[in-house]
Amino acid sequence: MAELMAALFYAEMRWDPKDPKNPDSDRFVLSKGHAAPILYAAWAEAGVFDRAELLKLRTLGSDLEGHPTPRLPFVDVATGSLGMGICAAIGIALNARRIKSDYRTYVLLGDGESAEGSVWEAANVGTLDKLDNLCGITDVNALGQSRPTMWQHDMAQFERRWTAFGWHAIVIDGHDMSAILDALDQARNTKGKPTMILARTLKGKGISFAENKEGWHGKALSKAEAEKAIAELEKQFVSAPDGWAAMLAAQIQKPPAVKRPAVTPKPIPPPAYRIGDQVATREAFGTALAKLGEADPRVVALDADVKNSTYSDRFEKAAPDRFYENFIAEQAMVGAGMGLAARGAIPFPSTFACFLSRAADFVRMAAISNLDVKLVGTHAGVSIGEDGPSQMALEDLAMYRAEPNFTVLYPSDGVSAERLMALAVARPGPVYIRISRPKTPVIYSNEETFRIGGLKVLRESAKDVATVIGAGVTVFEALKAYDRLRAEGTSIRVIDLYSVAPVDRAGLVAAGRATGGHLITVEDHYGGGGIGDAVAEGVADAGLTVHRLAVREIPRSGKPEELLDRFGIAASHIVKAVHTVTAKATVAAR
Amino acid sequence: MAELMAALFYAEMRWDPKDPKNPDSDRFVLSKGHAAPILYAAWAEAGVFDRAELLKLRTLGSDLEGHPTPRLPFVDVATGSLGMGICAAIGIALNARRIKSDYRTYVLLGDGESAEGSVWEAANVGTLDKLDNLCGITDVNALGQSRPTMWQHDMAQFERRWTAFGWHAIVIDGHDMSAILDALDQARNTKGKPTMILARTLKGKGISFAENKEGWHGKALSKAEAEKAIAELEKQFVSAPDGWAAMLAAQIQKPPAVKRPAVTPKPIPPPAYRIGDQVATREAFGTALAKLGEADPRVVALDADVKNSTYSDRFEKAAPDRFYENFIAEQAMVGAGMGLAARGAIPFPSTFACFLSRAADFVRMAAISNLDVKLVGTHAGVSIGEDGPSQMALEDLAMYRAEPNFTVLYPSDGVSAERLMALAVARPGPVYIRISRPKTPVIYSNEETFRIGGLKVLRESAKDVATVIGAGVTVFEALKAYDRLRAEGTSIRVIDLYSVAPVDRAGLVAAGRATGGHLITVEDHYGGGGIGDAVAEGVADAGLTVHRLAVREIPRSGKPEELLDRFGIAASHIVKAVHTVTAKATVAAR
Repeated sequence: MAELMAALFYAEMRWDPKDPKNPDSDRFVLSKGHAAPILYAAWAEAGVFDRAELLKLRTLGSDLEGHPTPRLPFVDVATGSLGMGICAAIGIALNARRIKSDYRTYVLLGDGESAEGSVWEAANVGTLDKLDNLCGITDVNALGQSRPTMWQHDMAQFERRWTAFGWHAIVIDGHDMSAILDALDQARNTKGKPTMILARTLKGKGISFAENKEGWHGKALSKAEAEKAIAELEKQFVSAPDGWAAMLAAQIQKPPAVKRPAVTPKPIPPPAYRIGDQVATREAFGTALAKLGEADPRVVALDADVKNSTYSDRFEKAAPDRFYENFIAEQAMVGAGMGLAARGAIPFPSTFACFLSRAADFVRMAAISNLDVKLVGTHAGVSIGEDGPSQMALEDLAMYRAEPNFTVLYPSDGVSAERLMALAVARPGPVYIRISRPKTPVIYSNEETFRIGGLKVLRESAKDVATVIGAGVTVFEALKAYDRLRAEGTSIRVIDLYSVAPVDRAGLVAAGRATGGHLITVEDHYGGGGIGDAVAEGVADAGLTVHRLAVREIPRSGKPEELLDRFGIAASHIVKAVHTVTAKATVAAR
Repeated sequence: MAELMAALFYAEMRWDPKDPKNPDSDRFVLSKGHAAPILYAAWAEAGVFDRAELLKLRTLGSDLEGHPTPRLPFVDVATGSLGMGICAAIGIALNARRIKSDYRTYVLLGDGESAEGSVWEAANVGTLDKLDNLCGITDVNALGQSRPTMWQHDMAQFERRWTAFGWHAIVIDGHDMSAILDALDQARNTKGKPTMILARTLKGKGISFAENKEGWHGKALSKAEAEKAIAELEKQFVSAPDGWAAMLAAQIQKPPAVKRPAVTPKPIPPPAYRIGDQVATREAFGTALAKLGEADPRVVALDADVKNSTYSDRFEKAAPDRFYENFIAEQAMVGAGMGLAARGAIPFPSTFACFLSRAADFVRMAAISNLDVKLVGTHAGVSIGEDGPSQMALEDLAMYRAEPNFTVLYPSDGVSAERLMALAVARPGPVYIRISRPKTPVIYSNEETFRIGGLKVLRESAKDVATVIGAGVTVFEALKAYDRLRAEGTSIRVIDLYSVAPVDRAGLVAAGRATGGHLITVEDHYGGGGIGDAVAEGVADAGLTVHRLAVREIPRSGKPEELLDRFGIAASHIVKAVHTVTAKATVAAR
């Protein structure tokens, strides 16, 4: 990779070592993140930090980690899970279009990495979006971690795949500097499609005992081996003149100086519903997304061929230039969102919540990168009804809540959906918003305010015997249970836990203490990792325990209300749970 | 699709409507699961169930769900999340080789579905494994859910991709019955590679108001529309002679009658360690996998180019014919495992736990299918050290524990690793086994027995002031904390929670009650969805709360022991937590 990196950093790319975040600087993504040391070396050579820092590689005090993360100012997205960097590069290239910059995006992949399906999702999207500002390079060294790679040095295998997927493919000897420079030149002059340079290389080139040999992947050389390798390599070097480092730095092409006015978002029009209106949160999501798009040029939306079900097509109508269709390719969608977020956009990738799990590993890496990506999963839970379990997200809250820096929001009505969408834009870092399919009545006034880490007490009295905590569709089951219990003379407190992560610990503890210590959660989600667990953790320090209603088995097709009932999260189950926990307490008190 | 299904079911496939699970029957996977009604119709026509049942489609009492699930005896794997059926078909085709059957596997995909990266992972694996017993059919109807598909009716786009990926591609008119039959014949006679039939079709063919028109995806016809459609279609039918259904059924080719002896697994040799031996659980996993493979011909292993790190290469040496290398394609690996499991194999797909999250949506569908797939995730947690956060699984327990039918096991030493592997084979349904990278001392004797839903009390006395619950690497931190606390005169109970789902509720409650109600969990996992939550839920009914130690922020590179300390899960934190909870209790008791 040394020749490829040298060509990119010292001949091809326009960048400023002193200003790595320059919005008009060319971008480099190391999709094969395990090659991090050469990336660090390239930046150190350019004087970005002291070369002595390189010796701190992989130690606890250093940001030069085993794989690159955005803790380093010159890294846009964390890499190290293969096949993601190229998806992010799609988003970074799309961002150039958004801000009308002519910066180019370069992404370096491994040959083993090319087995990842996400690479081919990105390949399709790059072609469809005609991203001629994107140049991939595949380092075809033929040696994987555990054995020779799938296609080894059969360059035709790569060429015919990339050509078939619509890219301009160029096969070169990756150790031939003029061939590399020619290929980069060709890529820059190719219009209407992205280019993939397929560079045939030898792993460990120039080191007699390692060149093109298995068994050296991720292995450090012993001191003796290292000395031998260095001696061999030095014999092959042209000796450098005095002051070469400064000469090198001076020859780096700088990005163009472009004046960019500061972005001033317009105010977002408030929700416009009437209490009692029947509105699906997915519809309010679409409305909010369009409003946000009109108010803020940073807001972009990404779809995976469900825009007519999620209502993200409302954004498409409002801001067609910032709506990116990925077809049924959730990894490419979320990865592109990560790339867009890394360059200053505020992306909302959305699809059915269950299919966002296709991009679970991207979610993990978005968390590691701490990107401002706002994921929206619609059609959550058994309340979608007849389509059956394959279309029901029942583990999504567990997935996002596990990530320590994810904010997880879950609106119940049209007003809260719109308000939480606006909060998501303002909230730094990754956000997940869980959205439902069925229509639900509007319960909040258009002026109602919400906050990250908040909750709403919807019903309360001094005589409440228990607190029922719902979110999304189960808020309405809790309200029904309230009415039924009131009819028999029993009062309960009802909470809408619209902020699942973080939770309002103080609010939950206060409610629990005011209602005999009885907290009951009810969620359209499996029992593990969701609202029950979130509340239980939130109140654990106060010594309160939680009675949980959740979906406890694999569900099936049926009408939404039938399924809520069949799988134990309907109003009738809440009524029963209130009876159970209060009866237990009565027995215990005897 | 009517012509394609008719050709498959009544001319091409060898199957027995009365014996859908026949091991030598040809298999059909509906990868585009949303087309479920035509699958149900095909089986109903063959007399498998009464046609009147079809009218119960998508109702709560019926197994004819919105998308197919294995609740139906003729469905191998649940479909409905696109791009998975073809991965499962790879496994089903591999299984034919395993059992030396000549059954063929047919899989029907949608054109929109072809945007999923997993399709191209499967394409590569099918080529590498030379699966000429596999025949794909893509229904190219050009209309997606929300808009025309990526390549619409440009058949060359499909042809060049499938050819580039090494398949025999055949483009046909999907409404021309003789073309379909010719293509299937050609596929059957193609050796050394799988075939993909690319069928150009018109959605709604023969219905004037719907044919090749947008806006009808997933939409039921009104009564008037349905009547018009039926009248139009009937005009185009050749009228059927009396007794046609019986004639049709009679012409179905039956599978060959093959005598298959019952599988009698051999006994598994017990672990062979000495107490105190330093053994990584990943190494014991590899040893156990090889032993299981030698003992039981149903056991197969799947890798994604990390076999030398996970030690699954030990299985490869022991049973090379049942070791399937997928290269870096985790979706294909898990999907193929699902297909193998559906046909009677007991597959162990393994890779780094963090990269298994690449297949999270497959995990979800494996749960819905309730398949005997045994997933093994190695290199869990910050204890992997220098490679950094991208290589650390810290949300995997949340993912698997959320699924209501997953068993989750987490060995701490070599003996428990081998024993839990054997339990995984015997346990019906999906299992996840969490494996660690570092060497840890053997603490169990080779004769020790374990059970699903069990735990081990490693230290106990009548004076224990708290119970510390660890699993995997944190068991050893708990044991260190025990020693330090004992030195200051404080006794704690130490539990190895090797079964995370299900948990031993009674065992946890008993320990909590015996130790002042103080339960402390410590896990090499993020705070949400893991061991803390599992224990808290397990003891909630007993009114016990849990103090949790877990990783609370995005970690970084460093030495394993440094990271355990930095991220709050080392022995020192356990000691502090014991002091805190017991001090609090003292204050509360005053």
